[in-house]
Amino acid sequence: MSYFANIPAVKYEGPQTTNPLAFRHYDKSKKILGKTLEDHLRLAVCYWHTFVWQGNDIFGQPVFDRPWHRPGDAMERAVEKADVAFEFFTKLGAPFYTFHDTDVAPEGDSLKEYVNNFSRMVDVLAKKQEETGVKLLWGTANLFSNKRYMAGGATNPNPEVFAYAATQVFHALNATHKLGGSNYVLWGGREGYDTLLNTELRKEREQFARFLTMVVEHKHKIGFKGAILIEPKPMEPTKHQYDFDTATVHGFLTQYGLEKEIKLNIEANHATLAGHSFHHEIATAYALDAFGSIDANRGDQQNGWDTDQFPNSGEELTLVIYEMLKHGGFTTGGFNFDSKVRRQSIDPEDLFYGHIGAIDLLAQSVERAAKLIENDRIQAFKDERYQGWNTEFGKKILAGDVSLEALSQIAFDKQLNPAPKSGRQEYLEGVVNQAILG
Amino acid sequence: MSYFANIPAVKYEGPQTTNPLAFRHYDKSKKILGKTLEDHLRLAVCYWHTFVWQGNDIFGQPVFDRPWHRPGDAMERAVEKADVAFEFFTKLGAPFYTFHDTDVAPEGDSLKEYVNNFSRMVDVLAKKQEETGVKLLWGTANLFSNKRYMAGGATNPNPEVFAYAATQVFHALNATHKLGGSNYVLWGGREGYDTLLNTELRKEREQFARFLTMVVEHKHKIGFKGAILIEPKPMEPTKHQYDFDTATVHGFLTQYGLEKEIKLNIEANHATLAGHSFHHEIATAYALDAFGSIDANRGDQQNGWDTDQFPNSGEELTLVIYEMLKHGGFTTGGFNFDSKVRRQSIDPEDLFYGHIGAIDLLAQSVERAAKLIENDRIQAFKDERYQGWNTEFGKKILAGDVSLEALSQIAFDKQLNPAPKSGRQEYLEGVVNQAILG
Amino acid sequence: MSYFANIPAVKYEGPQTTNPLAFRHYDKSKKILGKTLEDHLRLAVCYWHTFVWQGNDIFGQPVFDRPWHRPGDAMERAVEKADVAFEFFTKLGAPFYTFHDTDVAPEGDSLKEYVNNFSRMVDVLAKKQEETGVKLLWGTANLFSNKRYMAGGATNPNPEVFAYAATQVFHALNATHKLGGSNYVLWGGREGYDTLLNTELRKEREQFARFLTMVVEHKHKIGFKGAILIEPKPMEPTKHQYDFDTATVHGFLTQYGLEKEIKLNIEANHATLAGHSFHHEIATAYALDAFGSIDANRGDQQNGWDTDQFPNSGEELTLVIYEMLKHGGFTTGGFNFDSKVRRQSIDPEDLFYGHIGAIDLLAQSVERAAKLIENDRIQAFKDERYQGWNTEFGKKILAGDVSLEALSQIAFDKQLNPAPKSGRQEYLEGVVNQAILG
Amino acid sequence: MSYFANIPAVKYEGPQTTNPLAFRHYDKSKKILGKTLEDHLRLAVCYWHTFVWQGNDIFGQPVFDRPWHRPGDAMERAVEKADVAFEFFTKLGAPFYTFHDTDVAPEGDSLKEYVNNFSRMVDVLAKKQEETGVKLLWGTANLFSNKRYMAGGATNPNPEVFAYAATQVFHALNATHKLGGSNYVLWGGREGYDTLLNTELRKEREQFARFLTMVVEHKHKIGFKGAILIEPKPMEPTKHQYDFDTATVHGFLTQYGLEKEIKLNIEANHATLAGHSFHHEIATAYALDAFGSIDANRGDQQNGWDTDQFPNSGEELTLVIYEMLKHGGFTTGGFNFDSKVRRQSIDPEDLFYGHIGAIDLLAQSVERAAKLIENDRIQAFKDERYQGWNTEFGKKILAGDVSLEALSQIAFDKQLNPAPKSGRQEYLEGVVNQAILG
Repeated sequence: MSYFANIPAVKYEGPQTTNPLAFRHYDKSKKILGKTLEDHLRLAVCYWHTFVWQGNDIFGQPVFDRPWHRPGDAMERAVEKADVAFEFFTKLGAPFYTFHDTDVAPEGDSLKEYVNNFSRMVDVLAKKQEETGVKLLWGTANLFSNKRYMAGGATNPNPEVFAYAATQVFHALNATHKLGGSNYVLWGGREGYDTLLNTELRKEREQFARFLTMVVEHKHKIGFKGAILIEPKPMEPTKHQYDFDTATVHGFLTQYGLEKEIKLNIEANHATLAGHSFHHEIATAYALDAFGSIDANRGDQQNGWDTDQFPNSGEELTLVIYEMLKHGGFTTGGFNFDSKVRRQSIDPEDLFYGHIGAIDLLAQSVERAAKLIENDRIQAFKDERYQGWNTEFGKKILAGDVSLEALSQIAFDKQLNPAPKSGRQEYLEGVVNQAILG
Repeated sequence: MSYFANIPAVKYEGPQTTNPLAFRHYDKSKKILGKTLEDHLRLAVCYWHTFVWQGNDIFGQPVFDRPWHRPGDAMERAVEKADVAFEFFTKLGAPFYTFHDTDVAPEGDSLKEYVNNFSRMVDVLAKKQEETGVKLLWGTANLFSNKRYMAGGATNPNPEVFAYAATQVFHALNATHKLGGSNYVLWGGREGYDTLLNTELRKEREQFARFLTMVVEHKHKIGFKGAILIEPKPMEPTKHQYDFDTATVHGFLTQYGLEKEIKLNIEANHATLAGHSFHHEIATAYALDAFGSIDANRGDQQNGWDTDQFPNSGEELTLVIYEMLKHGGFTTGGFNFDSKVRRQSIDPEDLFYGHIGAIDLLAQSVERAAKLIENDRIQAFKDERYQGWNTEFGKKILAGDVSLEALSQIAFDKQLNPAPKSGRQEYLEGVVNQAILG
Repeated sequence: MSYFANIPAVKYEGPQTTNPLAFRHYDKSKKILGKTLEDHLRLAVCYWHTFVWQGNDIFGQPVFDRPWHRPGDAMERAVEKADVAFEFFTKLGAPFYTFHDTDVAPEGDSLKEYVNNFSRMVDVLAKKQEETGVKLLWGTANLFSNKRYMAGGATNPNPEVFAYAATQVFHALNATHKLGGSNYVLWGGREGYDTLLNTELRKEREQFARFLTMVVEHKHKIGFKGAILIEPKPMEPTKHQYDFDTATVHGFLTQYGLEKEIKLNIEANHATLAGHSFHHEIATAYALDAFGSIDANRGDQQNGWDTDQFPNSGEELTLVIYEMLKHGGFTTGGFNFDSKVRRQSIDPEDLFYGHIGAIDLLAQSVERAAKLIENDRIQAFKDERYQGWNTEFGKKILAGDVSLEALSQIAFDKQLNPAPKSGRQEYLEGVVNQAILG
Repeated sequence: MSYFANIPAVKYEGPQTTNPLAFRHYDKSKKILGKTLEDHLRLAVCYWHTFVWQGNDIFGQPVFDRPWHRPGDAMERAVEKADVAFEFFTKLGAPFYTFHDTDVAPEGDSLKEYVNNFSRMVDVLAKKQEETGVKLLWGTANLFSNKRYMAGGATNPNPEVFAYAATQVFHALNATHKLGGSNYVLWGGREGYDTLLNTELRKEREQFARFLTMVVEHKHKIGFKGAILIEPKPMEPTKHQYDFDTATVHGFLTQYGLEKEIKLNIEANHATLAGHSFHHEIATAYALDAFGSIDANRGDQQNGWDTDQFPNSGEELTLVIYEMLKHGGFTTGGFNFDSKVRRQSIDPEDLFYGHIGAIDLLAQSVERAAKLIENDRIQAFKDERYQGWNTEFGKKILAGDVSLEALSQIAFDKQLNPAPKSGRQEYLEGVVNQAILG
């Protein structure tokens, strides 16, 4: 009997429902600012946390009792996992899913087995997609779990590991293309260092740039129309990861002329580990024309590792979605739940509770953000605040028509003495809270 | 009577001395790896912490009883301060000093007064330099203390503030040029935001880039041969500063084509606030060809603000100097003590203890780093570790001569199965400790 | 003309109002769970942040243009400040205020002046209280700003400083008693160390315990009926403060037999600086029977210092108030706004915006928390989860009726093999979000 | 062939040796301050990190290729592991080792199997100890890895889990007694919460106190003469652990009258995760009469989780050992290497490099600390600094002979105006550095 046999398909029942397995806010066809919630959110479930993780942590053994984790023929278990995963996607009503190559297929004991297993599972997934209508938001390759990657994938001191990594990405990108994926993601979990004492920073950066260039070239060669995305993370499992945050990744891409080819997949918990707010990373990505997609989750403000909890702050998400709506929302990207239930949440229902709560919250956050935009006192305040830059004086400066000396002379001649003006932070925070809490 | 009247000039007396006002290790003429300690270190005392700060903190009133802080005619006090500062530089034997415009001259009540006061004090400093032989490592403009800058200097919503900031930099850069400064530094203490709710990120970045471009153009126009340096800091006093860290600043400069014109002034405490080790920031700056100068200090590992303590970790400094020596050491830069005595260290001697301890430590760190280099087991291990990239296979990949598909085919044909090799972190840490502790 | 002349008294106008100077939710007479909002919240405005701070930060000069900060006769300015403060309290409708001795009276140049000034200002405040009906939530003594306290108050290496501190507390506690204060607070901003190298931990702890004991004895002697409260903070301005967090303070009090005499004043921002959630500190205080009062504010999750921002998270406050309501709410305590407007918020209105926003948020949080309690699925889940401890088996263990050996034998005989049960975290987080967002 | 067959016994060869598998400083018979290095350090190797961990991390599979981790009969593997462990202890020359019950014996599928396996392995260990002379520093029970403990051991909502935990501790304490262990340790890795939403704080604290009381009673019953120790840790794997830090644990013990019965096992990395320096935790433990033993390791200052690296800072250790020597050093405790080689350090030699480097560093730190003590300028400064408390005035205050009012009157009568005195932090830091670096 199926793992989720006792759980019916999740339906929208409205805010008054007492059914914890129903949506209270995510009415997918509801239009907000001219677009359905489904199209705003482009929700995706991830294989990795929801179907691969066994409930172990660094101090604890697996706790989940899931049939597809039991011993047995690896390919049979992979098919069983795909069955249950698509049952989950379908019952949840998620339009998308995401995977690592080794989430969906056993990696086997050789490259031959890897290629063979993965190829067979891609056929299985293709069929599942066709049967269910669930689509692939993005695929990726796992270049961090196997021991060969312990010192990096693309940035490994051994070029044979680079070649192995290239092979996985070749197949994972091809598979993503074949399965109609909207994006291809690179998360370089081991692309960093454990200690500078054994690391050639400059060399590893060059390797990484070469790797990315090869991926971009291949994308064009096979005609993949989706976006290539990098997911920044500052650390863990490495001491330091080269893809530290949005600004760092954008700087790196710019240095190697890749900034138009590669965009970002931003994760909430990675933002906070890097010392930024989630909002900051999203706003920065837009300011750099680098926004791609989102890994929706959250960290714990008191814990310094990637807790990957389900998003549960409407306060955080409303600002993130406000930023997105102001910039037109997703194109190829979506909200992927790179979130895992807590280790103590061992029941099938818990997987649903986690996703349903997060989805409802996202729906509510779209509504709140839309309220902010409909009467956009934030933008009005900003427009007023920066209006000096729309004057002739301001424009001339920005246009580069005035030298340091000339500007200094102007200031001196006018004996400028600009008066401070209130930044109104408390007022603006009140505006946001009114949208969120009423 | 002078504030430092009771303190004689600090001399090198060797490790056996019990005189706390003598150098035990900084024998400035001692040659290490073919260069004197003086030339390795290029030490500078900063006006800001040592002669401007009054011992106040956010919860406490001033505690220092220093004659030049007493009420009185501002210009007279500025001259008195210059006297005592140069007495300190000279008694300490520091070859360099550094200043903000408003450290050395009262800013007055108008641009006219500012320009006038500053100009007069530059003449005073010029004379002092000539009399003492002390040189200017770098000058800078204070664009953060005055209330006009509360919402930023170059990134202010009001272009008149931008113009005011430009005026200060114009005069501070000219003064630095006139005084023979080796560098000009920009620290954008308010170039960031307190809240995203009132901030146009993209616009402020553009303003900042324009400002920097104007500064670079002016430098060339006046023929200033020193380096223009940006000092990264992630936050404080702002919630978020645009010059977050080395990688972020380099990315920004690259985006605006300024990466060859502007280098970095890296501060230890700013590194750690950004979530990096000091060593990381130095190594990264070299990997990006962005290294310029150093603000020597340290933070407190348990406190999340800029404590600006005197450097006191030989373990940290040995690795930093190892990195520097491997790359040829300073060119225009130097070690500037952007360090302040603790608020309880209220005596004149304390200013000497802080500097002497740090200088001796730097001298010892040069010796330790030289030991590491003379028998460079770290480099030997790295060379061996990355040797695969010197093979034909490795070179071909890096040269861009092989596509993702081709590499994937090679890996498959060879059925590559690269074996992990030890990263030897503990061994290498032992090598470092042997150099430091014997 | 009064500083707040243009601002009318703040009124409750309901959620639909567009007046930013009105309450949208704080209808003080509204009853929730049988108590008015006014009685639930017991709101207090603090002198310190709102009338004493001048808008300086560690890198910046004062920015606020407030008449009572201008030069002049110190006592006249103190009276002017009291006038404006009570105007503010009254216009805001805050039933309480709080102060440090030196907030309300100039400390003068000697103990004599201090005593004299303070005594005269207490008379002024008494009259103001009578005229307006505003009451004193708590008084306290500032043992951290003056340079004499740079190495501590009660924990100073010099017993004369201890004596000076005792004198201030003597007068501040007497004044609090005279003014009918509900509590007396001790925040030991300098009761900690900058470095262990010059600190006798054991000795300083003894001094601190002695000091607290003397305060408690004096309280009883004068018949003060309010509570004595300690406000924990982990650091800043010191590197480490002895009153680190709730658990540490409670442990200290217990060691010295003071745990029944002294309760806690918990501040949100201090909680997060100590590595705890605000909710944690409140829940812990209740678990230790140590809850007293609250300093309402918040920190910035990315900044490692005390930002003292106005509370703006309904998500955080709902849980805090839920915890309070479950335990009966405030007795002597209240919500004191230990919050300061941002440095850029320089206008009189900004002081109102900050307080109004926070008050409305607190009102909304009471409503949300009441919703949680009315259908307390959290408590229901907990009751079910811990029910085993209500069985005979569980009770016997807790009663101490079974030894380790005996219990081990029982477990062995039954061959116990307890099955894990879901902790339902995601479900419970959903329950909370439904209360908050609907 | 043995895993360590190619590695000879590690010998002291002196600082000039180039043999990386020799001690350069740890001459165990060398006397410092009248005690041998062996007796100062009481070194212990831990089973857990060195023989149980397989090189997995949260993102990566096992990487170590160690014979005793291969599949096979669990008891045979346990014996094989004991063989290799004692070979390691002996070759390293470590006088002590430490273990969890489930490190040394397979836990089996039932309590019966657990008891049986453990009992048989205790016999094996007893024989090994006899053969080699290696002694047990402490034993402990693993109450965190098995899924039954996912919601806590002693603090589990289910009393049956409490009983299971009690059973393990019963057997582990008995085993420790039988094996002549010097201490018994409790680390409550799951004694905390993941979310307050499902947690009864007060109840769980009571359970924990009961558990500890039972353990103490059992210790006395069986006549175990060693110390019972709690190891504080603030978080991980839980969000919050009740044994947060030294002060918290001491407060808890005091509340339940256990502070004389239970001391602390302090771990460097846990100290820093709790927001303290290692030095702070040691100094605090002594100030509270709570010092027991040390888990020697270190964290990474940039990573917010327990990295458990081998100690490598002489600067940190010199201060820790200075503190210890001032208080008489270890009694029952010792330095246990709760340290693991980095995941990339996969070779047998790496296990030796890690331990040898750390042991040499500890030996050097004892020498440095002894130098500090022989000419104790730190203590001399402290004595001078606090001398006021030795005057009649100071003594009277501390003795409780003067009330707040009386002291206030004295201060007023004398018009006290104590002058600040320098805290000399920079001078003292220089003193420490001279001892460390020469």
